[in-house]
Amino acid sequence: MSTSFDPKDPNYAERVSNSFKRQKVMATLNAKLESVAPGEVEISFPYHEDFTQQHGFIHAGISSTILDSACGYAAFSLMPADAAVLSIEFKTNLLSPAKGEKFIAKATVIKPGKTITVTEAKLFAVSGESIKLIASMNGTMMAVFDRPAITQ
Amino acid sequence: MSTSFDPKDPNYAERVSNSFKRQKVMATLNAKLESVAPGEVEISFPYHEDFTQQHGFIHAGISSTILDSACGYAAFSLMPADAAVLSIEFKTNLLSPAKGEKFIAKATVIKPGKTITVTEAKLFAVSGESIKLIASMNGTMMAVFDRPAITQ
Amino acid sequence: MSTSFDPKDPNYAERVSNSFKRQKVMATLNAKLESVAPGEVEISFPYHEDFTQQHGFIHAGISSTILDSACGYAAFSLMPADAAVLSIEFKTNLLSPAKGEKFIAKATVIKPGKTITVTEAKLFAVSGESIKLIASMNGTMMAVFDRPAITQ
Amino acid sequence: MSTSFDPKDPNYAERVSNSFKRQKVMATLNAKLESVAPGEVEISFPYHEDFTQQHGFIHAGISSTILDSACGYAAFSLMPADAAVLSIEFKTNLLSPAKGEKFIAKATVIKPGKTITVTEAKLFAVSGESIKLIASMNGTMMAVFDRPAITQ
Repeated sequence: MSTSFDPKDPNYAERVSNSFKRQKVMATLNAKLESVAPGEVEISFPYHEDFTQQHGFIHAGISSTILDSACGYAAFSLMPADAAVLSIEFKTNLLSPAKGEKFIAKATVIKPGKTITVTEAKLFAVSGESIKLIASMNGTMMAVFDRPAITQ
Repeated sequence: MSTSFDPKDPNYAERVSNSFKRQKVMATLNAKLESVAPGEVEISFPYHEDFTQQHGFIHAGISSTILDSACGYAAFSLMPADAAVLSIEFKTNLLSPAKGEKFIAKATVIKPGKTITVTEAKLFAVSGESIKLIASMNGTMMAVFDRPAITQ
Repeated sequence: MSTSFDPKDPNYAERVSNSFKRQKVMATLNAKLESVAPGEVEISFPYHEDFTQQHGFIHAGISSTILDSACGYAAFSLMPADAAVLSIEFKTNLLSPAKGEKFIAKATVIKPGKTITVTEAKLFAVSGESIKLIASMNGTMMAVFDRPAITQ
Repeated sequence: MSTSFDPKDPNYAERVSNSFKRQKVMATLNAKLESVAPGEVEISFPYHEDFTQQHGFIHAGISSTILDSACGYAAFSLMPADAAVLSIEFKTNLLSPAKGEKFIAKATVIKPGKTITVTEAKLFAVSGESIKLIASMNGTMMAVFDRPAITQ
């Protein structure tokens, strides 16, 4: 995947992958880092009833967990090698019930910055051949430097 | 807890409690419905490393899961007996790292409506005697009627 | 401009244009309805110091005014002939200072619905040959029927 | 008005007032800075049809203009004397039509920070003795230092 962004750290993909592995919630959700490109990240996860709301759909907060990680790592892929990334805020719109065999979040940076990076993401439900847009996120990420508790 | 809202359904608390029990993700997170009043709901959950991001804090999406359920049930408590509730959208602001022994979300309706109900919530981290505001949510909920797949 | 949406009302463009003319704030801002297609609307407005914040840039709320009208009319273009449109909520991200000769907002529906329509928009600053993304919006619009005070 | 915040600059009120006077859009809207306390600001403005949408209500973007300035100055009141303030993002919920004789926005800091300050605001419509909540905002503000184009 080629994008219009120029990464500050040539090892961006490995850095994203290593940080993703340290997010224990990703393992809990059986999430998979599908692709990493400068400013673009895709993460998938399968349906599991452990993460459902009262109607048997995936809970909006779980969808947001995957969307936020995708947004955070899209931003992180463009940050310098010594930065850590934190979410400042995000907004999720729930467009359709989250039902399907698996789900894939696609996140893109729309404005990189030294401190603040703004991202957008879409979540798709996959069922057999069908793929359907079910949620969107708009999130603001911050590069953090030299905070002992907040590493990569 | 007494609030300024007048519930349309006198059995609102039981209805919220029953729906909460059907949210399997609440059991997965060991979440507890702490209180229900007209337009106000509190939900707590303990820290567990299964739900953490790369720095060992609770993932922002997991915080959003609890905040969204609290907002949804605050709205649901004011809806008529035959309504189901869906989240249209929410925004989460992450104010401080989500570290602590347990967390408690407090949600309030700020504008009830026939179709649309607007809510706000705060998430607090509790560690011993200390209690700290760590996240806020603003969410829009919709009352849904007569959709076979979407029950209470 | 051809889009993937099928308008419910064949006179959607005239209906949008007539409603736009009734928004007095659009005349106050010297805003112009540049284009209307099913689910897509563009509105431009020139820089004027009457609408600036303390640094001489267009105020973020004025940018939001144009973005919200573009989102609202993108949603309205897909609604049936007897619907009125109201904004439920929107989020604006300010990406760069709003300086330029003129500004153009481009809004698109990402999920149409009977009651709720979700939209996205981008605001660009134009200065000579240069065009720059300066703000984004994500907004939720509602179709309203049979409310006497709320006509088209 | 006494608040729980401790301003870094004892001249915070004068600094806010001076910056407010430089926002030309505030004069255009006939807006008035009603009060300034550490982390809390109130701004009012009268109804005028120049700022209305198609139903004769104040446009949601104009409401957002006042809410955003109130949030920005609430944040600014807690910043050091050499900081400028910029809005990163805000979300507005429209709770009821903006009709009334005048409107008053009340903004409060919920989390001050060295770089990022998070705020909340409510907008009320005043008509005679009646006062009604009509909109809410949640906004993220940034302290900016040493950028020549961005002064106080």
